[in-house]
Amino acid sequence: MSGWLWFKDRFSSSEIHNHAFSKILRSFNTNYQEIQLIDSISFGKMLLIDGDVQSSLFDEYIYHESLVLPGLMSCSCSPTKVFLCGGGEGATLREILRCKTLESVIKCDIDQEAIQMYMEELPEWHQGSFFDPRVTLIHMDARKLLEEQEDQSFDAIYTDLTEPVNGGPSQMLYSKEFFSICKSKLNPNGFLVAQGSLLRINTFEMHASIIKTMKEVFPIVRSYAVYVPSFDTTWGFAFASLEADPLAFDAQEINLRIQKRLSGKLRYYDGIAHQHIFSLGKDLREKLNSSGSIITDHLPFSLKKKSDL
Amino acid sequence: MSGWLWFKDRFSSSEIHNHAFSKILRSFNTNYQEIQLIDSISFGKMLLIDGDVQSSLFDEYIYHESLVLPGLMSCSCSPTKVFLCGGGEGATLREILRCKTLESVIKCDIDQEAIQMYMEELPEWHQGSFFDPRVTLIHMDARKLLEEQEDQSFDAIYTDLTEPVNGGPSQMLYSKEFFSICKSKLNPNGFLVAQGSLLRINTFEMHASIIKTMKEVFPIVRSYAVYVPSFDTTWGFAFASLEADPLAFDAQEINLRIQKRLSGKLRYYDGIAHQHIFSLGKDLREKLNSSGSIITDHLPFSLKKKSDL
Amino acid sequence: MSGWLWFKDRFSSSEIHNHAFSKILRSFNTNYQEIQLIDSISFGKMLLIDGDVQSSLFDEYIYHESLVLPGLMSCSCSPTKVFLCGGGEGATLREILRCKTLESVIKCDIDQEAIQMYMEELPEWHQGSFFDPRVTLIHMDARKLLEEQEDQSFDAIYTDLTEPVNGGPSQMLYSKEFFSICKSKLNPNGFLVAQGSLLRINTFEMHASIIKTMKEVFPIVRSYAVYVPSFDTTWGFAFASLEADPLAFDAQEINLRIQKRLSGKLRYYDGIAHQHIFSLGKDLREKLNSSGSIITDHLPFSLKKKSDL
Amino acid sequence: MSGWLWFKDRFSSSEIHNHAFSKILRSFNTNYQEIQLIDSISFGKMLLIDGDVQSSLFDEYIYHESLVLPGLMSCSCSPTKVFLCGGGEGATLREILRCKTLESVIKCDIDQEAIQMYMEELPEWHQGSFFDPRVTLIHMDARKLLEEQEDQSFDAIYTDLTEPVNGGPSQMLYSKEFFSICKSKLNPNGFLVAQGSLLRINTFEMHASIIKTMKEVFPIVRSYAVYVPSFDTTWGFAFASLEADPLAFDAQEINLRIQKRLSGKLRYYDGIAHQHIFSLGKDLREKLNSSGSIITDHLPFSLKKKSDL
Repeated sequence: MSGWLWFKDRFSSSEIHNHAFSKILRSFNTNYQEIQLIDSISFGKMLLIDGDVQSSLFDEYIYHESLVLPGLMSCSCSPTKVFLCGGGEGATLREILRCKTLESVIKCDIDQEAIQMYMEELPEWHQGSFFDPRVTLIHMDARKLLEEQEDQSFDAIYTDLTEPVNGGPSQMLYSKEFFSICKSKLNPNGFLVAQGSLLRINTFEMHASIIKTMKEVFPIVRSYAVYVPSFDTTWGFAFASLEADPLAFDAQEINLRIQKRLSGKLRYYDGIAHQHIFSLGKDLREKLNSSGSIITDHLPFSLKKKSDL
Repeated sequence: MSGWLWFKDRFSSSEIHNHAFSKILRSFNTNYQEIQLIDSISFGKMLLIDGDVQSSLFDEYIYHESLVLPGLMSCSCSPTKVFLCGGGEGATLREILRCKTLESVIKCDIDQEAIQMYMEELPEWHQGSFFDPRVTLIHMDARKLLEEQEDQSFDAIYTDLTEPVNGGPSQMLYSKEFFSICKSKLNPNGFLVAQGSLLRINTFEMHASIIKTMKEVFPIVRSYAVYVPSFDTTWGFAFASLEADPLAFDAQEINLRIQKRLSGKLRYYDGIAHQHIFSLGKDLREKLNSSGSIITDHLPFSLKKKSDL
Repeated sequence: MSGWLWFKDRFSSSEIHNHAFSKILRSFNTNYQEIQLIDSISFGKMLLIDGDVQSSLFDEYIYHESLVLPGLMSCSCSPTKVFLCGGGEGATLREILRCKTLESVIKCDIDQEAIQMYMEELPEWHQGSFFDPRVTLIHMDARKLLEEQEDQSFDAIYTDLTEPVNGGPSQMLYSKEFFSICKSKLNPNGFLVAQGSLLRINTFEMHASIIKTMKEVFPIVRSYAVYVPSFDTTWGFAFASLEADPLAFDAQEINLRIQKRLSGKLRYYDGIAHQHIFSLGKDLREKLNSSGSIITDHLPFSLKKKSDL
Repeated sequence: MSGWLWFKDRFSSSEIHNHAFSKILRSFNTNYQEIQLIDSISFGKMLLIDGDVQSSLFDEYIYHESLVLPGLMSCSCSPTKVFLCGGGEGATLREILRCKTLESVIKCDIDQEAIQMYMEELPEWHQGSFFDPRVTLIHMDARKLLEEQEDQSFDAIYTDLTEPVNGGPSQMLYSKEFFSICKSKLNPNGFLVAQGSLLRINTFEMHASIIKTMKEVFPIVRSYAVYVPSFDTTWGFAFASLEADPLAFDAQEINLRIQKRLSGKLRYYDGIAHQHIFSLGKDLREKLNSSGSIITDHLPFSLKKKSDL
C-alpha cells in the first residue's frame, strides 16, 4: 500500500497538511477548473478542485448534512421548491431530496464535464440523486439562471460553491448583488444557505465578510460551523432568511421536525448536533461581530489560489 | 522570516501536518521526555513534548479554559480545594486560580526540569500562577502523591497529562485503578476532569476507553470536545462525578455562574461555548457508545510514540 | 499546473526528497511489484517501482548509457551475443542495440505485465528496441534462463535490476553463485556489468558488497558511478571480466572505439565521461576497499523497502 | 532522537529535499544574512545561510578540498601569497594553509558576527586556522579590499561566497568588472578559483554565466564539479588563469605535486579525484558551451532567494 504519493493541502505558506494517497482515480482539466479524484489512505476517495479538498468519502456526510438540513428544519413550512447553485458531487442534492415535501429542485452547476465525472465516479456521494424525477440539472452560470427565473420563487436556495478565487467561476456568487437576487427569488418563508469558507479563530475573514454582506440584505443571518476531519479544520456556513431562525428551536423540537420532514437515516445531524453547530465559541463570535467587509460585484472577495500560497 | 524549518506533526503514517517555525527557543531532554519550544510562524510559541504539540501561544486559551472551567461551573458549590495532576505549562493552574472560592491547589508534575523551563519561557501561559500563595508545587508521580493525601479530600481533580505512550510517565494515570483513587479523594460534590485525547470521528479509540473506564467508577461521566487550531483537530475531555452534571444547565445559567464564581476575562468559554463543547455530533456519540475498552493497570492503553508513526 | 501532488523519495528516516508531479499516467500492481508512472514537473515521466525511482525521461540517458556503453568499449572484440537480465523499460536494450557487431540479445525480465506497459507508455525509452529483429524477449526468472543456456556463451551479460529488497524478485541475482553462473556463460573476451546501487560516501554498503562478491569470481572488477539528477545522488555500476579492463584506455582511445563500434548519437558518454565515471574520489575508494561482505544465496543482501524506511 | 524537526532545502517549486535534524545549535540574524546551525541527523552539524546549505560536518571536506587544492597543484610555482574572499567557516582557509610555501593569506569576509560564531561553533571546520600567524582576517566588502591592495599581487585568489541573490552581500563578486580586478591583482603565475554554483544537467545557468564571464577576462578558464551528498547535487567551481591549466597534468603528476606542496592528510582529493572533477559529461560540456550570459555590474546574475522558491 504505497505511502510515497502525497497530496499537500496548503493552508498558508507556513501550514501544509500532507495526505498520503494510493491512486489518482481521475485527473483532468475542464474549462473551469483542474480536477483530481484521489484515493487517500486516511479518508478514501477525495475530490480536489484546484488543489482544494472538496469532500472525502469518509466524512462528506458531515459537510453535506450540515449544509442542507439545518435550513430545512428552520422554516415554518417544509420546502417544496429548491434552487441549488453548484453542489457538484451530488451529495448536496442527495440531502435536499430527503425533504418529504419537496416537489422540485433545480441544480445549476457551470461545469458539465465535472458533473459527468461525478456521476460516474462518485456513486457513494450522489446515490442516484442526479436522476431523481424531482431534479432538473442545468449547466450554466447559476447566478444568470437564477435571475432568469422570472415567475418562480423558491423556498430554499443553497450555494455549494468553490471558494471565490480570483477569476474563478464562483467569484460573483458571494456578493451583495447576488444575495439580493436570491432574496428576490425567495418566498417569505424561504431561506438561503451558503457554504461559508474556513471558519476558525485563525481564519475567519472570508466568512465574516459573507455574514456581513448577507446582513445588508436579510434581517436574519446566522453563522454556523462544523469540524470536518479531512479538511483538518472547522468549516463555516451562512444561513439567511426573512423570518426563519435556526436558533429558535431546542434539540427536541429539531428531532421532532427531522422525523416529520426528512426521510432516510441521518449520520451526523440531529437535535444535539444542531445545537452544537450553531453555538460558536466566544472568541469567534466576537471576531465575527467586528470583522469582515461588504462584498460587492465591484469589490469581490478574492482568496489566493492554493497553488500560489 | 525563515520558511525552511518545519515541524512535522505526525497523526499517522498517512497524515502529516507541517508547521513552519523560525526558531527553537529551547530544546532539551529531561529524565522523562524530550522537549522543544519552537516559535511557529502560524501559532507563535509552540511547546512540543516527544514530538506532540502540547499547546501554542495563539490558542492555548481554548484548550485550557475548556479543560478547567466547565467543571468549576457544574458542581453545586464552587470548589475550595483542587488537585492538579500534571498541567506543566501553568495555564491550567492559571484557569483554576480564577475560582473565587479557591483556597488551595496542589499541582503535582513529575518533571521539575520541564517546569523550571516553563516558568522562565512561558509567562504568557502561567501569568505568574506558579507563584500564587494558594498554590503548592510538588514534583513527583502524581498518582503516588494523590494516594498519600491521607486525610485530605478535594472538590476537583484535574489531569492535564501527556498521552499514555508506552513506558511514558503518564501511562498509569488513565486506568480504572487510578480513577478509583481519584474518586476516593473527592468530596461528594466533587468532580474529576481528564484531558481526553484526540476526539474526532476518525480517531476516538483512546477517548472512548477513558470514558468507558470512568463509567466503571463514576455514576456521571460526560465527553466533551473543542477544536484547537494548532492541533488541527478537535480535542476531547472527560468529566466524571458523583452528582454534578454539566448537561444540567442552559447557557444563561452558565453565564450567571461564571459571573459569580470566576474572576478575570474569559476568551473562549461562556454559556454558548458550554453548550457547544458538550453537544457532539450524532456519529461520534454513537461511536463512543459502542467503542472503547476498560483501561486497567495491567492492560494500559498505549499510543504509539509520534516518532514511531 | 498542479503543485499539490508529490512523490516522496525516502532515502532514510531522516532524508526525504520531494518531487512534485502533475499526473499519474499509470498505476498498477503486477505479480511482482507496485508500479507507478508519474509525470513529474522537474523530470517529466518518472517510473516508480515499489516507491523507488527507476528512471526519468529527462535524464534516463545518463543512467542507461553509463550502464551499457563502457563495457562495450572495454573488451578487445566488439560483442555479438548479449544477455540482459531485467532492463524493464527497454532503454538498456536500446543502448545495447547501438553495438554494430551485435547479432543477438536475449532480454529476460520476470514481469511481463510491466513490460507490456513500458512498450505502450515509454516509447522515448525503448524507441522500438523491443521489436528489433536481433532481440528475443523472454519473461521468466533471468537466473534460471541463464542457467538453461546450455550450449550458449555470451560476450556480455548485463543486469539491470531493482534493488534486492527482501523477498523481491531480484534478490537472488546479486550473489556469488549467480555471478559464477554468469562467468560460466561468458566468452573469455566477455564481461558482466551490473547496476550497482547507490554509491556515495554516505551510502556504499550494498555496492561494496557487490564488488567484494564479484572479486570472488572474476579477476578484474571495477566500480564506477555517475550522478543522475532525478535520483538526487550518484549511482554505482559494477564491471567484471576475465581480461577486459575499462581502465586500460585513455579518452582518445574510447572516442575512437565509440566511432567504430557504436551507431547513433550519444548524449552523455564519450572519452572524457569515461574517465569521469571510472575515477572515484579518494574517500570512496578507501571505503570500498575496506567494506562490504560476500553475498551468497544463503546470506543475501536485503535492503529495506522504501515503504519501511 | 527527534524525527519531527525538518529542514526543507528548496531547489525549486517542484523539488524539495527534507533533512531531519535534532537541534538548532545557533540561530541569528546578522546585518547581512539569516544564519542557522542545525544538527542534522544524516550529516551532523549543517550550516544554513538564508535557507541554503553552506556545508555539513560529514562532507565539508569534499567541497573545501575541491575548491582549494586543484588550483594549488596547477600553477608552476607553489603559491606564497593568497587572497580569500568570503570563506566564512574557516575550512577554505584550513585547506589553503596546507600549502607549504604559503607566507601570507588575507581572508576577507563581510560578516564579522557570523565569523565570530564559526570560530566558536565550527572547530571541526577551521581547526584553528583563523588563528594561524600567516592569516590576516579582515571584515569588510572583499571587492573593495582587493581593489585597495595597491602594491600587492597574489598567487591565488579564491572566492568562497554565498550565491548571488538579489541585494545579497555577494552579488557584486561575480561580475566581469570584479574578475578584472582579480586579474589585475594576480601574478602571471597566479590563478583565481570561484565557487561556481549548482552544476548539473538540469541546473547550470549560473555556472555557465560565471564561466562565460571569466572567459572575457582570462585566457584559461576551466569548469569542474564534485558531488556533495549533503547538497544532494554536484556543485561547480570555476578556475581561471593567465597560464596555469589544471588539465595539463595526469593523475601521477598531481600525486607528486600533492606530496611536494601540501601538508597533512587529504580525504577526498588526489590524482584520480583530480581527473574525476575536471571531466564533465558530454551533455554538460555541450550545455556550458552554448549557454550563459556575461555578468556585469550593471547586469548582475540574481538567483531567487530560497524563501521565494
